[in-house]
Amino acid sequence: MITLVLVGIGTGNPEHLTLQAIRELNAADLILIPSKGTQKADLAELRHTICAQVVTNSATRMVTFDMPRRDATHPDYHKGVDNWHEAIAQIWQETITTHLTQHSQQDCIVALLVWGDPALYDSTLRIASRLSPPPRAVRSVPGIMSLNMLAAAHTIALNDIGAPFVVTTGRQLRDHGWPQGADTVVVMLDGECSFQQIDTKNVTIYWGAYVGMAEQILLSGPLEQVGQRIITTRADARAQHGWIMDIYLLRRQPSA
Amino acid sequence: MITLVLVGIGTGNPEHLTLQAIRELNAADLILIPSKGTQKADLAELRHTICAQVVTNSATRMVTFDMPRRDATHPDYHKGVDNWHEAIAQIWQETITTHLTQHSQQDCIVALLVWGDPALYDSTLRIASRLSPPPRAVRSVPGIMSLNMLAAAHTIALNDIGAPFVVTTGRQLRDHGWPQGADTVVVMLDGECSFQQIDTKNVTIYWGAYVGMAEQILLSGPLEQVGQRIITTRADARAQHGWIMDIYLLRRQPSA
Ligand SMILES: C[S@@+](CC[C@H](N)C(=O)[O-])C[C@H]1O[C@@H](n2cnc3c(N)ncnc32)[C@H](O)[C@@H]1O
Ligand SMILES: C[S@@+](CC[C@H](N)C(=O)[O-])C[C@H]1O[C@@H](n2cnc3c(N)ncnc32)[C@H](O)[C@@H]1O
Repeated sequence: MITLVLVGIGTGNPEHLTLQAIRELNAADLILIPSKGTQKADLAELRHTICAQVVTNSATRMVTFDMPRRDATHPDYHKGVDNWHEAIAQIWQETITTHLTQHSQQDCIVALLVWGDPALYDSTLRIASRLSPPPRAVRSVPGIMSLNMLAAAHTIALNDIGAPFVVTTGRQLRDHGWPQGADTVVVMLDGECSFQQIDTKNVTIYWGAYVGMAEQILLSGPLEQVGQRIITTRADARAQHGWIMDIYLLRRQPSA
Repeated sequence: MITLVLVGIGTGNPEHLTLQAIRELNAADLILIPSKGTQKADLAELRHTICAQVVTNSATRMVTFDMPRRDATHPDYHKGVDNWHEAIAQIWQETITTHLTQHSQQDCIVALLVWGDPALYDSTLRIASRLSPPPRAVRSVPGIMSLNMLAAAHTIALNDIGAPFVVTTGRQLRDHGWPQGADTVVVMLDGECSFQQIDTKNVTIYWGAYVGMAEQILLSGPLEQVGQRIITTRADARAQHGWIMDIYLLRRQPSA
């Protein structure tokens, strides 16, 4: 029987780790680290760096596994994701079985490093629920999210006083436009600068790429003035690094 | 000239502190700690405990100031808040002036401990913008928010796959009902169990009080089944501790 601990590690700054995350990593018998799949070699590297820096318990084993790739050509998107999650669950199980002795498998703690917070647009919890046999327990350790880091980097609040905000994806913004009932929208998982699809009038954008990381880029201002520059900057940065992660907050003048 | 650093400390678990928060606190010349105003003596105590545990730089001074009270009887709510923020800014300024020598005021770092993350329903950034003379710079250090801790405690995700969620207040939920366009709503700043105002059908609630703290209480389930128990539990806990902070996530079956 294993206990699975999902440890939020923040969004690329090793200093985002909480004392709780560090304690939990050091309490683990095994830490699983994905080595591929993201095509972001720097990020795999970063996970190693983080572990190397904070894991002082010599009994804790760190094991790399090859992250399966999602079949992006699968005709049924949801089925494709399903298969992928199943494959990940299997490789976790295999890695755990291989690297824990009979003895330690009796009651051992396996930690997984999760980007940001395990609760935000992340599949680790869902994949964990596919493990067979199921873990004795699954726990989450909260982490700094990209949206916290975006707000901190721009020194802004997420909300207006007493007002709601929406967290959504690029696809949702394209498909449904500006969410009703809120004047602040945080957009994640957007590969297409979907802010181009909305009415730019009276909208301010706070954009960040690689937030919290050494590569961090920030741009902000009235959307009609900076939108184009964000598109260009994003394309350049992506070409330069080979990958990009970006996030932005849109705030429009409250409707009267 | 001072640099003001707003340090997110998480929601009551001293282990929520990030390595960055700890470094920033130790880099400060002065840490301002509110002593009253919240009527939550335990929380003031907690801030002291946190500082005592992590601040190892003997040059860092920790100074307590009396938090002004908001005049809740002010006929104009917004004006009342305005006056209150002004009073807080003034007491910060006075405390800084008193506790920093001429010399150190040349270029010194003042840290403020902020509950959770400075970006979420918190006025510290707004109050900072009232300081006169204005600080040379204001920086934010992200922290674990109550909503992260709520999700972690229940081991749930904030979002459904690819779906948006709304973060809002009890008042908004009462005044405007279930926000349009999202099936997940996180409700904060709710003194009235405002979930009573919405249609409970097909809604699951994940509720937490004192999340991350020793007093933590969690309840979850179909809203029609657990709503009443949450109301009672909340009232009891509030009576017992003299104060309460709670937060909840509502998820309804996605509309087809
Ligand atoms: C699969 S989600 C994971 C989110 C993560 N769990 C969190 O708490 O932030 C990936 C998306 O998060 C955002 N993101 C994550 N890290 C980021 C970073 N360092 N800079 C900018 N955006 C980031 C981007 O919008 C990206 O498309
Ligand atoms: C003024 S807001 C501050 C939020 C804070 N900045 C954060 O990041 O969570 C206070 C509200 O946050 C929520 N909250 C903060 N700490 C909490 C805790 N430990 N347990 C439950 N709710 C909490 C409650 O909804 C409370 O009414």
